[in-house]
Amino acid sequence: MFGKVVIYGVGLIGGSFALALKHKHLVREVVGVGRNPHAIARALQLGIIDSMASTPEEAMRDADLVLIAAPVAQTESILAAILPHLEPQTVVTDAGSTKSDVVAAARAALGAHVAQFVPGHPIAGREKNGPEAAIPDLYVGKKAVLTPLPENAEHHVERVAQAWAACGAIIHQLSPQEHDRVFAAVSHLPHLLAYALVDDIAHKPHADLLFQYAASGFRDFTRIAGSSPEMWRDISLANQEALLGELDAYLAQLTTLRGLLAARDGAALNSVYANAQQARQRWIEAIEAAEAPPPPPQETSE
Amino acid sequence: MFGKVVIYGVGLIGGSFALALKHKHLVREVVGVGRNPHAIARALQLGIIDSMASTPEEAMRDADLVLIAAPVAQTESILAAILPHLEPQTVVTDAGSTKSDVVAAARAALGAHVAQFVPGHPIAGREKNGPEAAIPDLYVGKKAVLTPLPENAEHHVERVAQAWAACGAIIHQLSPQEHDRVFAAVSHLPHLLAYALVDDIAHKPHADLLFQYAASGFRDFTRIAGSSPEMWRDISLANQEALLGELDAYLAQLTTLRGLLAARDGAALNSVYANAQQARQRWIEAIEAAEAPPPPPQETSE
Repeated sequence: MFGKVVIYGVGLIGGSFALALKHKHLVREVVGVGRNPHAIARALQLGIIDSMASTPEEAMRDADLVLIAAPVAQTESILAAILPHLEPQTVVTDAGSTKSDVVAAARAALGAHVAQFVPGHPIAGREKNGPEAAIPDLYVGKKAVLTPLPENAEHHVERVAQAWAACGAIIHQLSPQEHDRVFAAVSHLPHLLAYALVDDIAHKPHADLLFQYAASGFRDFTRIAGSSPEMWRDISLANQEALLGELDAYLAQLTTLRGLLAARDGAALNSVYANAQQARQRWIEAIEAAEAPPPPPQETSE
Repeated sequence: MFGKVVIYGVGLIGGSFALALKHKHLVREVVGVGRNPHAIARALQLGIIDSMASTPEEAMRDADLVLIAAPVAQTESILAAILPHLEPQTVVTDAGSTKSDVVAAARAALGAHVAQFVPGHPIAGREKNGPEAAIPDLYVGKKAVLTPLPENAEHHVERVAQAWAACGAIIHQLSPQEHDRVFAAVSHLPHLLAYALVDDIAHKPHADLLFQYAASGFRDFTRIAGSSPEMWRDISLANQEALLGELDAYLAQLTTLRGLLAARDGAALNSVYANAQQARQRWIEAIEAAEAPPPPPQETSE
């Protein structure tokens, strides 16, 4: 059970966290803070938050748990603003898609009080943003990755894990560096690639003709290019080093494939395509096995 | 109404075409031909075809309409095999994802009889392949692009258009060259990019860790990498020139983005991402408007 929970950023991520805790009656009071007064008003209307705080002092008074669910570039200034009002019982966490930069920002802003900050990243999203997109079951069955700091007390980490588990998430732990390398490959690079493709097509002189014939495969491939540009600019810059590494590996892969295509090397092309298809099939089967209900208990003769 | 319809290739595409015509009672008899005896047997079992033909002569006797729904690389040999048995009333079409190569193959195989061949491409698919994946409503609301030849008689083109319209498809016409340029950009390149990404990740030493954290965005982005490798090898080679052009444009775009990322140019990155997001949003809105039921008739005071 949580007393006062403070949400910085009342959009899809923060709003869904608040709704999940409220639906389970696990929070006494949710207070929202945000840059956008329309979003705050909407979050109040929708029952995502119970009240708004006008100052960091008001927000942080008697706070039990604080979730920062704003674009990652704002983490340091938000933490700097709350530091003077940070009470000893308060645990602060975040939902940023990058972690090394968030940890650096937290150390810079909080100093020794960084011990009260447990970095996190719930792996969930939708094509829509904003308070209207928030739903209580966004995190059910999804992973929440915590990247605890050496300074964190175990009971603080446990408190944040409890909150995400209450939202239905499965808790994982990685180091901030591991986290960023993993998500550069499986999330940040695909976003950049999807944005790049749509922008490339949109700039062609016959863009209208092209979009007219784009079908469901294109729609799925580019779904992630429907995400917030500001958020993904911040993520790209925050995880620049790992993302550049993944992008370079991918550029090398595409250059190899270009050579195979130019040489009409059908056997080698087939081998790349077939390897990808099989790897993806194994991955889908592993996901589906993990999501399947457990088998009924076996009767034994012993 | 069609008399005898012959399907070369009884998988998803050919099988769904046969099922759609049968469900509408628009065909007297469907005869299947294929390389894989298991697929033919399955198609018979599933009621997709009424009989199989063991020879081209048997297949083509009294045929009204022939659909070639096999990998595009087989088009020329299939057409060469049917030419000696091609009767004057028979119209032949295909469902290949590339058209310039199919037209070249048809001219090479059929000579003057190419007048009886109307090239086509239904824009529909599923993640699954084979006769089991065939469904009667695969083409409902989807585009079927015909790329008629100067030699085609108008009533032959009309006959093929009628068949696809009966399957629920919306008929479009492009030249074979236009078709291939368009689909290189919106279909063939995205397939190559998705295969490349999954293969790239699968070859990394920490592939298992990466796949563990890949989520719904990755799943959608790579859905098209679940498609048949053989089919997409053939398409890549068949549309090599246009695909190389699109791949080079995309490599240039990625290299530009790499430069922006390396220079930490957040404003320029944001502009690419935002342009892509907005272009995609406009495209989705246009699709949804086209798919929405027509508005109720307006009352007028005149």
